[in-house]
Amino acid sequence: MKFTKMQGAGNDYVYVNCFEETVADPRQAAIQVANRNFGIGSDGLILIMPSDKADVRMRMFNADGSESEMCGNGIRCVAKYAYDHGIVAKTEITAETGAGVLTLRLVPGGDGTIEKVRVNMGPPRLTRGEIPMTGDAAARVIAEPLTVLDRTFSITCASMGNPHCVIFVDDVENFPVSTYGPLIENHELFPRRTNVEFVQIFSRSEVRQRTWERGAGETLACGTGSSAVTAACVLNGLTERKILNHLSGGDLEMEWAEDGTIYMTGPAVEVFNGEIKL
Amino acid sequence: MKFTKMQGAGNDYVYVNCFEETVADPRQAAIQVANRNFGIGSDGLILIMPSDKADVRMRMFNADGSESEMCGNGIRCVAKYAYDHGIVAKTEITAETGAGVLTLRLVPGGDGTIEKVRVNMGPPRLTRGEIPMTGDAAARVIAEPLTVLDRTFSITCASMGNPHCVIFVDDVENFPVSTYGPLIENHELFPRRTNVEFVQIFSRSEVRQRTWERGAGETLACGTGSSAVTAACVLNGLTERKILNHLSGGDLEMEWAEDGTIYMTGPAVEVFNGEIKL
Repeated sequence: MKFTKMQGAGNDYVYVNCFEETVADPRQAAIQVANRNFGIGSDGLILIMPSDKADVRMRMFNADGSESEMCGNGIRCVAKYAYDHGIVAKTEITAETGAGVLTLRLVPGGDGTIEKVRVNMGPPRLTRGEIPMTGDAAARVIAEPLTVLDRTFSITCASMGNPHCVIFVDDVENFPVSTYGPLIENHELFPRRTNVEFVQIFSRSEVRQRTWERGAGETLACGTGSSAVTAACVLNGLTERKILNHLSGGDLEMEWAEDGTIYMTGPAVEVFNGEIKL
Repeated sequence: MKFTKMQGAGNDYVYVNCFEETVADPRQAAIQVANRNFGIGSDGLILIMPSDKADVRMRMFNADGSESEMCGNGIRCVAKYAYDHGIVAKTEITAETGAGVLTLRLVPGGDGTIEKVRVNMGPPRLTRGEIPMTGDAAARVIAEPLTVLDRTFSITCASMGNPHCVIFVDDVENFPVSTYGPLIENHELFPRRTNVEFVQIFSRSEVRQRTWERGAGETLACGTGSSAVTAACVLNGLTERKILNHLSGGDLEMEWAEDGTIYMTGPAVEVFNGEIKL
């Protein structure tokens, strides 16, 4: 199987061009290729496929073989691959995902290949029922106190298809993410657990995020998390609607447009090409 | 740069055939390729080169760019690569390393490619001065008590070019390696710190090892550690001189020959081929 390893803000997948290759058992293939010592090593496997509804279709399999609807960092790499490898010849394309058909804007760099991609992440869902959280299903959670161990945090919560709990801290580099992250992830407030973002505000247009990902621990980047952070910054009056978010694996340019949609613009990088026997 | 990713008992390196490729700055290249999110992902970079003293020469660079003399799991993959890719056409070859010229015996599998390789690991050095440990430089350390936190272990120590402290335990799967490993690694007995092997005896010919590697934490496999374990098993009268050692990343067949040399036979696997821009 021929493949291309790509990463977006440090979130890395093995991409297979299924316009040319066939992957008989993608769940099994994902488990095999994702292993970092015995396989190629990645966060999972993404298939770039023909679609009858859009320019390309993305199917995404996690390292454990389970299939996911969407990945904000992965879809950017799909768009870059499709353009750089001649599957599409335009810079505004559509991609079919498990979360519907998304419109992507491709930004070429100096060498003519795609450097960045803008993704429509949809609107944040802000009620407790939508996130989901226990309590009044119609109420929002903005700057609500939550006591964990010795500290009381001010939490703001949103769903971007998955639950997020955003917490502003003074010094995010030195914050003990792995102490408080799992306790908030598994707090009884969140019946389906939650992702947790710890955020430091640098200015009205610049923030720094560390991500505690549900079921995965601290990760380098999370596109839905960055979207929830953007909403939380605005809802708390801390930033404008356009911000630069520094994640551990790279930077994302975020905008919460007046129509309610959140747009994420970020890098997509081709790391190497290879061939493996499955 | 064309490369091949290979692993031996889970210890994985990027291998470059320097009979055909040139790597201008191997230290920098090692740092770049070893990164598991932004590079190829490996424990480091190994160059397979011409030698004027042996059939091939191995140079090995760790993930931080530092150069090491030798790696028991890496040298097996060098031998497999040299045979499978036509650099050598015999099954007993010599390899120049930073630890001298080693003789390797190659074992082909059913498809004609190399499946296993036997490596001469040299003799264990058993005196406190050689390991090194504090105390009488001429004395050996066999079943000597060492108290750490709440427990007193019986330790047996050896150098295989690097220091090892071997401890036999009843239930190695459930042993808290990450609790006791770093405390023993940094114990004042060991002026240059030590690797620590926790070992369960299954029979007179079969053991299970978990490895706490100096400066690296728990790892999947360690060839010099497996050699020290073999010596410790015999010195304590627990096994015969030939044992099968189950490491976390795979099995190694060990023999402490009557002439004092330890031989390690283990797998070497080609995982995938690729090409990357440095």
